[in-house]
Amino acid sequence: MYKGIAASRGIGIGSICVIAEHDLSFEKKKIEDTAAEKERFNKAVDEFKEETMKQAEDIRKRIGPKEAEILEGHLVMISDPSMSGEMTKMIDAGQCAEAAVEAVCDMFIGMFSQMDDEMMKQRASDISDIKVSLLKILLGIKDIDISKVEPGTILVAKDLTPSMTSQINNKNVAGIITEVGGKTSHSAILARALEIPAVLSVPDVTTLVKDKDTAIVDGTEGIVYINPEGDILSKYLIKREDFIRKQSELKGFLGKETLTADGESVELFCNIGTPKDAKKALECDGEGIGLFRSEFLFMDSGHLPTEEEQFNAYKEAAVTMDGKPVIIRTLDIGGDKDIPYLGMKKEENPFLGYRAVRYCLGNKEAYMLQLRAIVRASAFGKIKIMLPLVTCVEELRAVKEMISDIKKDFDTNGIDYDKDIEVGCMIETPAASLIADILAKEADFFSIGTNDLTQYTMSVDRGNADVAYLYSTFQPSVLRSIKHIIECGRNAGIPVGMCGEAAADPLMIPLLISFGLTEFSVNPVLVLTARCIISKWSKKEADELADKIMSLTTEAEIVAALKEASKE
Amino acid sequence: MYKGIAASRGIGIGSICVIAEHDLSFEKKKIEDTAAEKERFNKAVDEFKEETMKQAEDIRKRIGPKEAEILEGHLVMISDPSMSGEMTKMIDAGQCAEAAVEAVCDMFIGMFSQMDDEMMKQRASDISDIKVSLLKILLGIKDIDISKVEPGTILVAKDLTPSMTSQINNKNVAGIITEVGGKTSHSAILARALEIPAVLSVPDVTTLVKDKDTAIVDGTEGIVYINPEGDILSKYLIKREDFIRKQSELKGFLGKETLTADGESVELFCNIGTPKDAKKALECDGEGIGLFRSEFLFMDSGHLPTEEEQFNAYKEAAVTMDGKPVIIRTLDIGGDKDIPYLGMKKEENPFLGYRAVRYCLGNKEAYMLQLRAIVRASAFGKIKIMLPLVTCVEELRAVKEMISDIKKDFDTNGIDYDKDIEVGCMIETPAASLIADILAKEADFFSIGTNDLTQYTMSVDRGNADVAYLYSTFQPSVLRSIKHIIECGRNAGIPVGMCGEAAADPLMIPLLISFGLTEFSVNPVLVLTARCIISKWSKKEADELADKIMSLTTEAEIVAALKEASKE
Repeated sequence: MYKGIAASRGIGIGSICVIAEHDLSFEKKKIEDTAAEKERFNKAVDEFKEETMKQAEDIRKRIGPKEAEILEGHLVMISDPSMSGEMTKMIDAGQCAEAAVEAVCDMFIGMFSQMDDEMMKQRASDISDIKVSLLKILLGIKDIDISKVEPGTILVAKDLTPSMTSQINNKNVAGIITEVGGKTSHSAILARALEIPAVLSVPDVTTLVKDKDTAIVDGTEGIVYINPEGDILSKYLIKREDFIRKQSELKGFLGKETLTADGESVELFCNIGTPKDAKKALECDGEGIGLFRSEFLFMDSGHLPTEEEQFNAYKEAAVTMDGKPVIIRTLDIGGDKDIPYLGMKKEENPFLGYRAVRYCLGNKEAYMLQLRAIVRASAFGKIKIMLPLVTCVEELRAVKEMISDIKKDFDTNGIDYDKDIEVGCMIETPAASLIADILAKEADFFSIGTNDLTQYTMSVDRGNADVAYLYSTFQPSVLRSIKHIIECGRNAGIPVGMCGEAAADPLMIPLLISFGLTEFSVNPVLVLTARCIISKWSKKEADELADKIMSLTTEAEIVAALKEASKE
Repeated sequence: MYKGIAASRGIGIGSICVIAEHDLSFEKKKIEDTAAEKERFNKAVDEFKEETMKQAEDIRKRIGPKEAEILEGHLVMISDPSMSGEMTKMIDAGQCAEAAVEAVCDMFIGMFSQMDDEMMKQRASDISDIKVSLLKILLGIKDIDISKVEPGTILVAKDLTPSMTSQINNKNVAGIITEVGGKTSHSAILARALEIPAVLSVPDVTTLVKDKDTAIVDGTEGIVYINPEGDILSKYLIKREDFIRKQSELKGFLGKETLTADGESVELFCNIGTPKDAKKALECDGEGIGLFRSEFLFMDSGHLPTEEEQFNAYKEAAVTMDGKPVIIRTLDIGGDKDIPYLGMKKEENPFLGYRAVRYCLGNKEAYMLQLRAIVRASAFGKIKIMLPLVTCVEELRAVKEMISDIKKDFDTNGIDYDKDIEVGCMIETPAASLIADILAKEADFFSIGTNDLTQYTMSVDRGNADVAYLYSTFQPSVLRSIKHIIECGRNAGIPVGMCGEAAADPLMIPLLISFGLTEFSVNPVLVLTARCIISKWSKKEADELADKIMSLTTEAEIVAALKEASKE
């Protein structure tokens, strides 16, 4: 048994095919006829581009546009003058094409991989892919054709290049094991898109196994078995059946309404970070956006986004969602989210500091830009405004006053907007929970942020491993707070959503149905899972379970009782 | 008008006497007869010791033992071989006595004042006092005799040395103004002990005023007027009358029971940090110790105090209080309180981290020592055990189990203890407030810690100036939480105290009477003030006010309404 990173869920069982690393070494030759060498180089680049385009086209059809973008990115990179141009210069100076490709690519790989940033590291891996592909073409090496492997093959490789992945047929490939790559690597993304179980970063796996070995790939737990004993094999055969049954059950929920077992309708929204994610939310069958984390616009930019830049982003999300609700949370920075160009102070306890709506109300000029951009974008869809980290009603009043001023200005200047745009509160501090009845009279909706609510209620930094044992949404105190918030919302007749991780937790869902939550906002990939679990609980059953749970006094008892009652 | 630090309450009006700085410069001479110079030095040291001892004796009689300790500390320091010994060595090397005193003292002052620690800075100021005193003796300079100033004198000085202060007679000195010193400086402590209004740290005040100027010293607000206009003077004359009347009213409460206006009895306890403070609590007429902050034992020591050391400290407090309750809070470190020798980790959000009962339950061996010491000390008085930062009932259960093990061990080994020793919880996290009914079934008493409760409920670091505007116990959310905790305690029939700053707040007291708080624990100096305010409110009046307050929605409205209703 080997452990690795669980990169794509599911159980794969089959026969191993090791994709050997090619020997890409070459002899460095001094070139006399540089013109001929440049032509050889250019032909190789053209061949690379053609292959890549074909593969991208193939991935776009079989998997999706987002996944194809990875390969299209390779086309952009190789066409960049700082890349092919530099290579050409080196050939002009008498280097062979292989040496030029290697030197320039290695320079960029070194540069990018030094940066402490996930995206830059990914860029380094992209260039490494380009280098390997170009060298193979120049050296005349052909990859084995993965598209031709037998059904039930477990692919084992050092890493999967996008060009390899483009040939993978999920009818034949039952599982993937690699030596490198994390949860967000291309291999992981593509494996998930193709729904092939995958375990990545298993050290030295290519040397530990040989062709035709039997392997189990548990992509849910991140475990690999090579030539397993009979009892393990039969256990996993049952597990695989179970997983496949559940997956097909989930597919049955695509395009369906979200209903409890007794036919009560609830809303099932998505949490997103960029306007592009709205497409993903629709693809995953989300019924709206319950949380648009607007701070990503600010974090991905090197400057404070202008009103126009923000407007375009919010409008794009609204247009994509085509009339479905888009709840935009205004800037939620501070705490663990820093934006360097804002020059925020270092704080002793940043989670108890100058963050979110506090920061915004202290920097009204910048906040005004965001609110104007959101209100303008409301002309293009069903946008709502949501305030993070509210602790007293004055904060809500102050923001509503700013919005009212914006509306007056827009009326005077004939700028279009949704006159009924709703303004709601995140309820994620103990203070907001305690005065939820007061806030409910002046807010158009609530959304419970369980991550922060748990953190503050339990007085536990959710990033601190020493106190992680206390951080649980199933603590009786946190459950009582959630129940109270929903009751206050219901009593005032406003909708109450939840956009923390708990909204998609199979153990939490029956409690939320019982408490009367009206909107669940989850990661897009969890829409169908949440819809499925919601469909299994009637209000009556959920109430019975909730009554029992709310009478318990410890988190351990509560979790045990919920697991016992689980319908997963 | 000048602003400074309000160091000792009250209004002083009178005529200024500036205590000029002496010129302590001297000519550095090369000494031939080092034996004679050493004798001159030793005679000066003897004279210094004799004077200091006389002053300490005087302060002990007129003010108190704690204040005398400052001067006794000077005696210990000058006798330290690293101080007088170093000076002697320099004289042996041919320096004159003045140069030796200056050089050695300046070295220590430099060393201590560099350390970022209030106590070390105080040490630097002590040595500066010693230096000045010794130089004056060596140079033959006599201080003006402050004991001989006219009645109604306002003393103005760069700083007050303890030797000056020892001569102050509060019949003659109506106020004190200095250029340096904070709320915890010796000058401040002594001014408060002598009940002389004082404003410290008024920049350049010695050069801004001259002898015989009229001055008003508002030691409550930290304001000084020099040669004020008639209307200001008459306003302050009335204010002074008012203050004096109130002070004498307070004295009337000495030795009295603590009763509401309708004769309901409540307990009025004190918060202390060392066993010696228990004496102070008795002197101030405290009826018990509501909070013994045991961490000071740990912070003042260079090592983990042994069971014996702790036992002696807890026993001393119990014996001093002679049967009156002494509630010992077990080690509350972490957050903003570090103990270097424990080697605690630096945390991103220490207030949400591994602190208080969390730390103790994670370090059971050390915690066991403390619990054993407390249980042993319970044989000598009415000791109770209180747990800080509880968030779930398992924490209370775990500590009670440890105590039960200790009792069994003591029974086996014939060690005496109070078999009915009570174990209670601080309620200072939102989680504990939310499950106060659950905790009340297993705790013997509650004590509300308003400082932390406010901090966590409002999600505001109480040390962060940028969010200080949100930190208020009068936030509707915090008041609701306090009310709820008291109700849960009453329903379970256990006493509920409060040991945060709010327990002595004149605006808060009527609300606490209405909610049904049974024990107020305050800083010893505030015992009489609290008893006086409690005496002015009947339950009925308090209920009427509380009903009105709890219907308001903002902190500003609440504070305004409480101020309007105030009976101060």
